[in-house]
Amino acid sequence: MPFDFETVIDRRHTNSAKWNVQPGELPMWIADMDFQTAPAITAALKKRAAFGVFGYEEIPTAYYEAVADWWATEHHFRPQVDWLMFCTGVVPAISSIVRKMTTPGDNILVQAPVYNIFYHSIENNGRHTLSSDLVEQDGQYQIDFKDLEQKLADPLTTMMILCNPQNPIGIVWSREILQRLGELALKHHVLVLADEIHCDLTLNGHDYTPFSSLSAPVAANSISCVSPSKTFNVAALHAATLIMPDQTIRERVSRGVNNDELAEPNSFAIPGSLAAYQEGHAWVAALRTKIAANQRQLQQFIAAELPSVKVIEAQATYLIWLDISAVATDANDLATFIRAKTGLFLSAGDVYRGNGSHFLRINIACPTAELTDGLQRLQAGIDAYQQQ
Amino acid sequence: MPFDFETVIDRRHTNSAKWNVQPGELPMWIADMDFQTAPAITAALKKRAAFGVFGYEEIPTAYYEAVADWWATEHHFRPQVDWLMFCTGVVPAISSIVRKMTTPGDNILVQAPVYNIFYHSIENNGRHTLSSDLVEQDGQYQIDFKDLEQKLADPLTTMMILCNPQNPIGIVWSREILQRLGELALKHHVLVLADEIHCDLTLNGHDYTPFSSLSAPVAANSISCVSPSKTFNVAALHAATLIMPDQTIRERVSRGVNNDELAEPNSFAIPGSLAAYQEGHAWVAALRTKIAANQRQLQQFIAAELPSVKVIEAQATYLIWLDISAVATDANDLATFIRAKTGLFLSAGDVYRGNGSHFLRINIACPTAELTDGLQRLQAGIDAYQQQ
Repeated sequence: MPFDFETVIDRRHTNSAKWNVQPGELPMWIADMDFQTAPAITAALKKRAAFGVFGYEEIPTAYYEAVADWWATEHHFRPQVDWLMFCTGVVPAISSIVRKMTTPGDNILVQAPVYNIFYHSIENNGRHTLSSDLVEQDGQYQIDFKDLEQKLADPLTTMMILCNPQNPIGIVWSREILQRLGELALKHHVLVLADEIHCDLTLNGHDYTPFSSLSAPVAANSISCVSPSKTFNVAALHAATLIMPDQTIRERVSRGVNNDELAEPNSFAIPGSLAAYQEGHAWVAALRTKIAANQRQLQQFIAAELPSVKVIEAQATYLIWLDISAVATDANDLATFIRAKTGLFLSAGDVYRGNGSHFLRINIACPTAELTDGLQRLQAGIDAYQQQ
Repeated sequence: MPFDFETVIDRRHTNSAKWNVQPGELPMWIADMDFQTAPAITAALKKRAAFGVFGYEEIPTAYYEAVADWWATEHHFRPQVDWLMFCTGVVPAISSIVRKMTTPGDNILVQAPVYNIFYHSIENNGRHTLSSDLVEQDGQYQIDFKDLEQKLADPLTTMMILCNPQNPIGIVWSREILQRLGELALKHHVLVLADEIHCDLTLNGHDYTPFSSLSAPVAANSISCVSPSKTFNVAALHAATLIMPDQTIRERVSRGVNNDELAEPNSFAIPGSLAAYQEGHAWVAALRTKIAANQRQLQQFIAAELPSVKVIEAQATYLIWLDISAVATDANDLATFIRAKTGLFLSAGDVYRGNGSHFLRINIACPTAELTDGLQRLQAGIDAYQQQ
């Protein structure tokens, strides 16, 4: 079935956070795709709107069945339905779990460079960020397990936020690495909070391992956060699911999420999620093909036109991590220059910490025409930067 | 323009919290109306659904203008646009403000009997509830100002949650009473959090006074919570507005609400609210007329058929407070009996505390056919209770 990933949609003046830009600017920053969502979702939302009554909602069992079925079909692992809990979003869940499952002053371990909002969830709640930075060599990032274990072993480290698939680098961690990491966390009494929001967007045959599918003791020491948000471009559907194999964790987190008023779905969250998980398989398959094609277009363009930029090979996500260390010493300075010069709005890598100040993140989930425009602006911007 | 408040809508199996009941039962408990919302809202939501892109949203200035304009037209007071802040709901706002503006162990003053969820927001966050109970005499509830001031003067009392119009009793507090209360709070360094969620649903010529329209010093010491939620029956639209005349309070609350992940609108919250506030005037006027008619039907029925029950005259809301002290000593026992015997599901008044255990709360926002059915069940239940 053909889906449309080529029509350029005018999103200006639609309250879009991504497109709140100046005339002529091209935003390729925030993780929000310039595609319409799956037709089945739009149809479900239209039907829900037409019903005309928007009172207090409950979550039907069918919702949890649909989530479990999606994982079984797409990821070859069916979480138990009673492990699942609805939440209004992955970031709201992370913030709430930080508050409920750790105490102020605790260390929360991350692996920089990583999704910048983790730092907000940690630090705005009075916890400390402790990073075991990923180590890069020849365009490959790896975990320094010695450093990781040392930091997990600190008694003040009580939680680890894992990002898999990893944003902004696009790594899909292997089952072996996840199991090893999970065993270390368990050994050192560190709860693992796995952000798996990009898990459906693996590329070029890479396969994601749900943290909840690891050995029973490791899975029991974890909370995974999933959502149709990134997969189907429905960030403002405000729907996510927590996967919690352990009953005690489940009940504590449930109390926290309820107390923080993040447990109730809006009128559209359940119908939209049901349509996504029950009818969205073919659309996501087509989307993955389109993202992989965009990835190739970007790689070929940069190899030919911008050899000073190094593209890190993403195994998942529609976010590409560009090593600009041969162009500039400060990614923020370069990003600001490119935006001012060409209107192309990218994410400067320094917000992700670690070695991010040598990188730009570009969002390639857009029609070919937009991507081509973006790449030309990138070239013009970098050429001009190098000539100044 | 005629609006339809008479068609009985089948809400079973629609994930409705209200209608999650056994076959044959009739729910008249939770504050959720059995009417479709205003046609303009449904049209706006259908249009938003059809757009097909549901990425991250921002709040346009037009939203705040629409809120301010609604207050100017409906309530003869236009709050400044920069006083306003979006939040995903009134209860989420209350919980978040309790956490941000008070500390664990503080007293938060309420006036029981009052909306039971206030107690959750206070006590689940580790604060103490301190009630200055409303005093009833001959079906009229009043504030005991001596008791109120004594409790406000307790240095451990740091916030007061005011409910105006009052749920479950339906009182609309006068400007004089609100000003007096506000001055006492100011004098004793107690922040006033005014839940005004029912403010658009005044009945029989009663008029509501926005707390933010009181004298400047009193208004500056307050946060008011408003929403289209009750007015338009859109609880699951997840949209509310905080009115905060004081800049410091505004910035503190903004940080709290953002930190608690309650500041971002879903895709439908803004378009739905805009339609409500820009195009909903005539619908709400018609709704008020329908609720007043239902109130008269209930009063006449109870006067004729259930003289042992005393109806408290609601000045606002679609919730009627029924004094059943001549029928039973325990409202919960009576409500359980009526539900088991007739299927009519009412709210037992004890959850509102104060003298609530002598009361039932009935939700009369429904088509005539449903109300008539409900009243007959109420009569059958009470007759059977008295005969046992």
